Amino acid sequence: MELVFLGTGSGVPSKERNVSAIALKLLQEQNSIWLFDCGEATQHQILHTTIKPRKVTKVFITHMHGDHIYGLPGFLSSRSFQGGEDRLTVYGPEGIRDFIETSLSVSGTTLTYPLSIVEYTEGPLFEDEQFMVSCKQLDHGIPSYGFRITEKDKPGKLLVDKLRNIGIEPGPIYQQIKEQEVVRTNDGQVIHRDDYLGSAKKGRIITIMGDTRVPDQHESFVQGADVLVHEATFGQEKETLAHAYFHSTTTQAAMLARESHVGKLVLTHISSRYQQGDDEMLVEEARNIFPETELARDFYQVIIGSK
Amino acid sequence: MELVFLGTGSGVPSKERNVSAIALKLLQEQNSIWLFDCGEATQHQILHTTIKPRKVTKVFITHMHGDHIYGLPGFLSSRSFQGGEDRLTVYGPEGIRDFIETSLSVSGTTLTYPLSIVEYTEGPLFEDEQFMVSCKQLDHGIPSYGFRITEKDKPGKLLVDKLRNIGIEPGPIYQQIKEQEVVRTNDGQVIHRDDYLGSAKKGRIITIMGDTRVPDQHESFVQGADVLVHEATFGQEKETLAHAYFHSTTTQAAMLARESHVGKLVLTHISSRYQQGDDEMLVEEARNIFPETELARDFYQVIIGSK
Repeated sequence: MELVFLGTGSGVPSKERNVSAIALKLLQEQNSIWLFDCGEATQHQILHTTIKPRKVTKVFITHMHGDHIYGLPGFLSSRSFQGGEDRLTVYGPEGIRDFIETSLSVSGTTLTYPLSIVEYTEGPLFEDEQFMVSCKQLDHGIPSYGFRITEKDKPGKLLVDKLRNIGIEPGPIYQQIKEQEVVRTNDGQVIHRDDYLGSAKKGRIITIMGDTRVPDQHESFVQGADVLVHEATFGQEKETLAHAYFHSTTTQAAMLARESHVGKLVLTHISSRYQQGDDEMLVEEARNIFPETELARDFYQVIIGSK
Repeated sequence: MELVFLGTGSGVPSKERNVSAIALKLLQEQNSIWLFDCGEATQHQILHTTIKPRKVTKVFITHMHGDHIYGLPGFLSSRSFQGGEDRLTVYGPEGIRDFIETSLSVSGTTLTYPLSIVEYTEGPLFEDEQFMVSCKQLDHGIPSYGFRITEKDKPGKLLVDKLRNIGIEPGPIYQQIKEQEVVRTNDGQVIHRDDYLGSAKKGRIITIMGDTRVPDQHESFVQGADVLVHEATFGQEKETLAHAYFHSTTTQAAMLARESHVGKLVLTHISSRYQQGDDEMLVEEARNIFPETELARDFYQVIIGSK
């Protein structure tokens, strides 16, 4: 699992930061990539990475502000132009269907792949064999959501040597032991699965928050995440401004990270009032409270290793 | 007058060429800039120029394909974010209103300036004291238009020395002479205006064509233009492909330029199948027919001097 920050600015693009988009690469897990937000020129940013648009199978939109969605029509069209055939699902708040359908329709665009559009509200959003994604409404001027992506725990591996020691050789019986808590063998042995399984592999958890203030209620939603991606539109001295514009400061995000016992905090959605030279100051404000903090720049990558 | 090519590719952005947009700088003429097409990331390209979005007062859209319009919502929003207050008028084919209004509405965007949207069809489009713009439907898969921008001729300057020689000193009478063909002075002299005016200054003509094939009927529309901006999606060897996709080749555009006696041809909308190393070959194909040809790259500028 790997996060690639494609756009880390807020509101308008600058020479230093594009508007919002994050790729979650799940290439080892399922040979696909998920996108979180798709600000204008996200497809241009992708040109400077190894990401193949046809590998993107899901796009999650945190909220409908232009700096988070205006790259969608171009991304969807270019994925088609480049021969994408696999289904793509876009999850977005109310309005996302109207935006996509109008953009494609007025431009006479026919996609080469099936497109599903899901207008979601708070709650569980998606589940497959490997992942669950749920979302929570945040505290922004318009409905804005955070996503909690939970990788399911993987059961431990069968302890083959231990089974052989009691005379059970590889064969269909191994599958039965994997699948059933108790198995009785043909020769009458009773096998309790837990005795012959290695320890389970804990799944990883990533939380990606849309634009928001930081009220206490967010703690349980991001609790225990390996990585929390949070906006920090402003530095700590702009708390009043952040509150007025329904945004967060570096220190507010860090306090949430500390109270929720996350593994790592990555700050993004940095106001264009800050220049590259301000990065150190901004990240230090957060590290004073939560040391495991990074400030994302465009193309910054975070590898989330197996536990 | 100056043309700045902000995006010279076709269909999808590449690392070398962004999708379509051209700025016509009329800073000396009327302290404003007009934009022709607004593909995705046009506002990003503008960041690398001296163009101020608030100076853009008119946007002309040649046709509704995504690579010509998907940058509009972001451009309109950012112009607002940057404090634009002057009216902006977007001229586009049917569907442009739906696209803009839906994009702004779903994203909760309120502009700081008045926005007019004009859905045009073939014919005269706009006229003020200095310029006339008319448009003609071209030959593309969907309605696509070309624009002819005609600067009005400026009357010659009053020949002050000649008037003084016959005893007429500067005063309100000079304004009368400018405005009336014949003026009788208080002391009974009859002044024929034409005898006391320098030669008129011919206005310049620019023609900017949307995506199209090149049928003969386009000749009268671009006739005598100082600059003809024409698409050349393909090189001369891809004539069949160009025809099938309703596009033009380098040589077809050059033949139109030659038959229409334009001053200069600028080729743009180059397919992403061609790399930078192909530029020389493409432009030479056209120059064999019409020597005064240039192939635009992103940020290429053409100054159209006074006559």
